[in-house]
Amino acid sequence: MPRPGDPLSAIDTPALVLDLDAMERNLARMAAFARSAGLRLRPHAKMHKSAELARLQVAAGAVGVCVQKTAEAEALAAGGVLDLYVSNEVVAPGKLARLAALARDLGSRGGRLGVAVDSADGVARLDAALREAAAVADVFVEIDVGQGRCGAPPADREPGAALALARQVAASPRMRLAGLQAYNGKAQHLRAVEARRAAVAASAASARATREALLGAGLPCPLVTGAGTGSYFLEAALGVHGELQAGSYLFMDRDYGDNEGDPAHPHFEHALFVLAEVMSAGSAHAVVDAGHKSHAVDSGLPRVHDPAGRRRLAFENGGDEHGILRPADGGPPPRLGDRVWLVPGHCDPTVNLHARYVGVRGGLLAGRVERLIAIDARGALT
Amino acid sequence: MPRPGDPLSAIDTPALVLDLDAMERNLARMAAFARSAGLRLRPHAKMHKSAELARLQVAAGAVGVCVQKTAEAEALAAGGVLDLYVSNEVVAPGKLARLAALARDLGSRGGRLGVAVDSADGVARLDAALREAAAVADVFVEIDVGQGRCGAPPADREPGAALALARQVAASPRMRLAGLQAYNGKAQHLRAVEARRAAVAASAASARATREALLGAGLPCPLVTGAGTGSYFLEAALGVHGELQAGSYLFMDRDYGDNEGDPAHPHFEHALFVLAEVMSAGSAHAVVDAGHKSHAVDSGLPRVHDPAGRRRLAFENGGDEHGILRPADGGPPPRLGDRVWLVPGHCDPTVNLHARYVGVRGGLLAGRVERLIAIDARGALT
Repeated sequence: MPRPGDPLSAIDTPALVLDLDAMERNLARMAAFARSAGLRLRPHAKMHKSAELARLQVAAGAVGVCVQKTAEAEALAAGGVLDLYVSNEVVAPGKLARLAALARDLGSRGGRLGVAVDSADGVARLDAALREAAAVADVFVEIDVGQGRCGAPPADREPGAALALARQVAASPRMRLAGLQAYNGKAQHLRAVEARRAAVAASAASARATREALLGAGLPCPLVTGAGTGSYFLEAALGVHGELQAGSYLFMDRDYGDNEGDPAHPHFEHALFVLAEVMSAGSAHAVVDAGHKSHAVDSGLPRVHDPAGRRRLAFENGGDEHGILRPADGGPPPRLGDRVWLVPGHCDPTVNLHARYVGVRGGLLAGRVERLIAIDARGALT
Repeated sequence: MPRPGDPLSAIDTPALVLDLDAMERNLARMAAFARSAGLRLRPHAKMHKSAELARLQVAAGAVGVCVQKTAEAEALAAGGVLDLYVSNEVVAPGKLARLAALARDLGSRGGRLGVAVDSADGVARLDAALREAAAVADVFVEIDVGQGRCGAPPADREPGAALALARQVAASPRMRLAGLQAYNGKAQHLRAVEARRAAVAASAASARATREALLGAGLPCPLVTGAGTGSYFLEAALGVHGELQAGSYLFMDRDYGDNEGDPAHPHFEHALFVLAEVMSAGSAHAVVDAGHKSHAVDSGLPRVHDPAGRRRLAFENGGDEHGILRPADGGPPPRLGDRVWLVPGHCDPTVNLHARYVGVRGGLLAGRVERLIAIDARGALT
């Protein structure tokens, strides 16, 4: 295990390395954006799964964080994060009992818990669990604004569906109708800015119509929450969303980096890397000690990042424990013991493969280990 | 956490469930095959990462197990597995020091450690580490028999390359030249049996030529080790390999199940499942609580397995925390709280996402929880 002050060479490989300087620049930039846009920022902690990083986000101005699983909420609450929103449906009775207990606990510590709903049965189950635990929760009615996954139909598609859920929530003394969740994950990775803009505009129109349906029925709709790293500035410009859930901006994976950037909102910096080392070298390729068990491949393979800007190496799939490097410049392959920095294709499931971040300060060439950061909610699946 | 005797309904989702009956049938069948073929069986424990399961394999006749990482070897040794072969190159000095210490420890407990090499520098580094630790190890010269990843060129491609490494190993008093590693991972997933047969025949010919080069130079070559679940019966028929490294046979993932079966060697049974539950239901699809963080997708999505044989459901990608079910039979989608059994596309990286197996006995319809099985080497990356 590397210790504070160690040189980068002391990090055993493969390792999940966080460039703290880059991460802090990303942190400050998104916080400043939300502030200047007059929007709440509730970053998604399913990405980093770390109480320490969530606390940094809150210290920089975030109102709290989102999570996707009850177990993630429990892990972050144990680490001192007190304003948590499970931006997902929870319907299993065992999970709801845990969620309600957590809501009560957070409430007693000056915090709060939110959760999403998308069915009448789900609202009834949540209500029963809150009653049993003598707890209260913020509840967002999730509407499906283009992802085709969870969420009730928005008012412009099926008038009355989301409204009925909102009525049901508002009728319970244990639930505060906090507004609507309107997140379109599919819009995040449309490569062209204009394609993202069109998708987000359609999503926002659905959210607006649904909000108007609630208000028209005399219900409150204090907040529309949603948006991600690929589109946050588009939602901000449309004025429907009041809260941004972007998470990946903090680390910026290869896949988000492959999106077309907007000149006014350039890409965040890559701050998360898998450090890997060559453990076999042939005449035309080299093999590093990092494969699918070190980095997720659901959004494609990692990209080799050379902080010195000297070499271009292609990364090829080498299976679970290996990665294959091939020079893209016709030069000889790296040698035994050489190290490379891999930018993961997708941060979230990559982080979930590791027990900790090695936080480094001073860059990837001459930096040093500053601290280890626990991934508290690693494997928090339930 | 489910307890022994609990019904299946007590298992919180998503969960990694092991059908112990099916697993034990697979275990016994491969052990019987190796016995009847007169071959050593050294299953690959990178797949299950569990000391308890490795001990079961040894009790059924395996000579020991393979692992791919030093940290996996350490985790299994701590769990009482004493004959371990790291079927991979280890060249980093820090890892070699740990490996040599483990070799000494295993030796003192009546066990043994093996490791693969594919470079002169690697052999020299290993020798230095063993000398420093006053340890000995079995060493296999890995040859590249078609995978294009690690391994020295075989004798039929580059005469003298593997032989020089074997000479170097044999010259050290700390290394026992244990033979050749000849594993062609790419052959495992060729769908047609005849394609696999041709690839394995070419690999075995390379291994045979290399073995003859060693023997012709007066060196020993006690064993050729390799083969996997897709091809074990093919290597067995060719008479070059003396040891089978197949691992996936124990759980049998969807991807191996998609191979064309050989009539004389039918597929092993699916024994590993991700149990998932519907947490959102639309009019045409349902959403379960299992996504990329519950099952690996490097070999494609899981398949929905219905133990009752009633329904056909297609599984679609729902992202990190969700899976989308769509009826393939035109019927209505599953309802809130319904459960499905997912056969992972690829067992190895799926197992690595979980902390434990829930072992069930009596089938997936009316069975009960028998015991939890630790995944000791989860995340053992270094």
